[in-house]
Amino acid sequence: MTAISQTWGRAAEGSAPMGFIDITLRGAGQVMFQDNPLTGLLFLIGILWGSIATGSMEVIVGSLVGLVTSTAIAMILNVDKGALRSGLYGYNGILVGAGLTTFLGANPLLWAYLIFGAALSTLFMLAIANVLKTWDVSALTAPFVLTTLLLLLATYYFPNTGISRLPHPAIPGSHPSTHFVQSDFVPAVFNGVSQVFLVQNVVTGIIFLAALAVNSVSAAAFALGGSFVAVAVAAAMGGDGTLISAGLFGFSPVLTAIALGTVFFSPGGRVIFATVLATIFTVIVQAALNVIVEPFGIPTLTAPFIIATWLFLLPRSGFVPVPHSKSSGGALEGR
Amino acid sequence: MTAISQTWGRAAEGSAPMGFIDITLRGAGQVMFQDNPLTGLLFLIGILWGSIATGSMEVIVGSLVGLVTSTAIAMILNVDKGALRSGLYGYNGILVGAGLTTFLGANPLLWAYLIFGAALSTLFMLAIANVLKTWDVSALTAPFVLTTLLLLLATYYFPNTGISRLPHPAIPGSHPSTHFVQSDFVPAVFNGVSQVFLVQNVVTGIIFLAALAVNSVSAAAFALGGSFVAVAVAAAMGGDGTLISAGLFGFSPVLTAIALGTVFFSPGGRVIFATVLATIFTVIVQAALNVIVEPFGIPTLTAPFIIATWLFLLPRSGFVPVPHSKSSGGALEGR
Amino acid sequence: MTAISQTWGRAAEGSAPMGFIDITLRGAGQVMFQDNPLTGLLFLIGILWGSIATGSMEVIVGSLVGLVTSTAIAMILNVDKGALRSGLYGYNGILVGAGLTTFLGANPLLWAYLIFGAALSTLFMLAIANVLKTWDVSALTAPFVLTTLLLLLATYYFPNTGISRLPHPAIPGSHPSTHFVQSDFVPAVFNGVSQVFLVQNVVTGIIFLAALAVNSVSAAAFALGGSFVAVAVAAAMGGDGTLISAGLFGFSPVLTAIALGTVFFSPGGRVIFATVLATIFTVIVQAALNVIVEPFGIPTLTAPFIIATWLFLLPRSGFVPVPHSKSSGGALEGR
Repeated sequence: MTAISQTWGRAAEGSAPMGFIDITLRGAGQVMFQDNPLTGLLFLIGILWGSIATGSMEVIVGSLVGLVTSTAIAMILNVDKGALRSGLYGYNGILVGAGLTTFLGANPLLWAYLIFGAALSTLFMLAIANVLKTWDVSALTAPFVLTTLLLLLATYYFPNTGISRLPHPAIPGSHPSTHFVQSDFVPAVFNGVSQVFLVQNVVTGIIFLAALAVNSVSAAAFALGGSFVAVAVAAAMGGDGTLISAGLFGFSPVLTAIALGTVFFSPGGRVIFATVLATIFTVIVQAALNVIVEPFGIPTLTAPFIIATWLFLLPRSGFVPVPHSKSSGGALEGR
Repeated sequence: MTAISQTWGRAAEGSAPMGFIDITLRGAGQVMFQDNPLTGLLFLIGILWGSIATGSMEVIVGSLVGLVTSTAIAMILNVDKGALRSGLYGYNGILVGAGLTTFLGANPLLWAYLIFGAALSTLFMLAIANVLKTWDVSALTAPFVLTTLLLLLATYYFPNTGISRLPHPAIPGSHPSTHFVQSDFVPAVFNGVSQVFLVQNVVTGIIFLAALAVNSVSAAAFALGGSFVAVAVAAAMGGDGTLISAGLFGFSPVLTAIALGTVFFSPGGRVIFATVLATIFTVIVQAALNVIVEPFGIPTLTAPFIIATWLFLLPRSGFVPVPHSKSSGGALEGR
Repeated sequence: MTAISQTWGRAAEGSAPMGFIDITLRGAGQVMFQDNPLTGLLFLIGILWGSIATGSMEVIVGSLVGLVTSTAIAMILNVDKGALRSGLYGYNGILVGAGLTTFLGANPLLWAYLIFGAALSTLFMLAIANVLKTWDVSALTAPFVLTTLLLLLATYYFPNTGISRLPHPAIPGSHPSTHFVQSDFVPAVFNGVSQVFLVQNVVTGIIFLAALAVNSVSAAAFALGGSFVAVAVAAAMGGDGTLISAGLFGFSPVLTAIALGTVFFSPGGRVIFATVLATIFTVIVQAALNVIVEPFGIPTLTAPFIIATWLFLLPRSGFVPVPHSKSSGGALEGR
């Protein structure tokens, strides 16, 4: 494995096209925080499997176009080389591609829209990362979420963007809920993993877990555990069976579990406990944001993961809050 | 009084359980910015009175559980001792407890939900205070508002959280308005004070004012004045009589008036004038946010207070804004 | 021209009333980033023309009252002299005046509301500019948008604020769309320019372009180009004919084009390309925000311009994002 890895590393450094392929594959891998081209390749294979299974080849093509576009724009903008090489300017673009092709019908305008959106995702990455650096926190998938939601919302006023598979805008709480069937538990857990790339497919979920394990067995374990916790919590709280089975309570918790359990914190009993709490909280935020998006006819995408993970990353040790006492320099005091 | 205070201080320092009680009582007091255990105790008595009057003992129990939980989590997280001792990690937790028990029916899952929420409120406090320290501004009750709204919203997708007393989600402007009856003026003013803890009870309002006066007569005066201004402004603008009488235009202005008039600014004619304007503005923000929350079936909680108070705290003396001219270092210019 | 300019400059410095007039006219000019009193005067003439044409004199009067109020409050608050003199405390106030008189019926309460709102816009300017200075980005028209939207939203709960011309709150996507007629193209482009001040009038649009050209021919060219791109893009994507013809897809792109093409970036091929992309993106954000505001019965105002322009201003050269790796000092790790 190490030998292959070294050979690949030399090939990536030796030629520009191979280097670009290396960067884009790492970009795919960074969707779940893995700076590893093989993980990225397996993610793409998992998406391909899902596209074939559902007869929607536009999803894998859109993912690739989004990945290549966002990475290329970053190179044109001459961004930081280290961040570029580790795939930080690709993971939002691939998700924009997967997101737009999942919710919109394929037509010529879609592809122009997708390329535009993937390019924008790189700007959003630069903009959001600049803002968040103030508090030493990563942008996570916020660039993907903001870009995709703006583009999806706009289609309600721009019918030429084609057939929409978006949910109808509605007043929250108006649709009936179904009971979760226990026998759906295992497929629900794997669907939760596959839905990170907006795919609902058990095999894809297994491929994604293998892709994680190639780079980090603990990342695979936390991903599986995050999806498991999500299904258990959502079912215990009476969540809708259709949503749970489709993995739609699970994809954000999967990302929260990987991020806190293996990426941003060092392993330990306390971190595992915090990660479980954050994962449960992500499920609650998912339910809350489901309500918020209903009147607008849009999905939440990975916004629950972003909110929950930021909440757990922002608290700092040794922090002294601004007290409830006289402030100085207020313009309203007139001094 | 000073003798009692000193005896209490020694007792609080002398034993861990007494110290914890001291911290939690100060946490209750900090809901209205009073770092005083007697004020906190009187606040709890006011809530107890309201709970008995309305036959909803879960509110006082929930408030206590929230207060203790959020404070305990802060101690586990080893937060800054000074901030902890002055109750800054308790005031959001007690409000989460009061909020969840007010809007949800009591059942076993509610209590688990409430403990989870109170713990989260401490994380939100640490996270928001970290972000806001950049501009030397306090978190106010934002941790309470965000935590509680997320937990309340989630109940629409999680029916096992039990009976909900939340308003039905609706398109704004669809319900009829009633006229405000002048004879309701005095009860409306006291209800405005009691609603700071989500209680609608004149006696509770009077107890709260006494609790403030114990620590700061001027805080009590500004609280009363803030509620008075709120009722007068809302009535003059044709606000709904039922809402005004229940004190639902008043609780945020009460907090704005105390915060700007007595806590963050030093007293003076100019500050009193600014505080009156901020209080009026809080009433307008209350009306505006009433519209924003309607489609989601949630209350505004103290969000109007937070927005208005931040607006008046953020302007700084001697401040030079970024001009309308060439910026440097923009990545889009390519240099 | 230079001689007149020098004479005016001496007059403005020589007397306090002339100085105040100079500052307010520059404030009007700053709505489109022009620090020039003649541009401001021509903008006022353009608004006057629109007010006469539509028989709504309250719009020009409201604009003047808003402009004078916000500038006067800034002087009372003793803000930075340089920013004050260049009109940075007037451009939001004039827009608040134009906005409130456009969407609300004229009555005594409106005028009190308008003066209050214009004063608030200065506080919002100080508050938002303070926050954004952290990232060296201008407040743009965010103070106007936030102030006006809060005041407009509040009218749904405060019927005494009078007749409302606001759109009815509705679930998005429920109203039929009309086809854009090619012969409306030219008027649509000029309406896009005039709508920057919420006026729908071709002559006003031409006066505004002349006002820009007096200070900067390139600003006039980018304004015209921005409106042209907006109409073309909105029509190509199947946008509603009535909205496009009224200039309602164009006013934000006009501002984006001036801001990026002539104000914040130095001219060049790359900047022109970025400006075109940002202008197209502004049209998409306009469509997206149209959906977001529908349930609340409010307009977007210039929010699309603000979002798009911030997105292009925030990315910095040589920027290194926070990586996907262990962070230090997280309170949840317990060290």
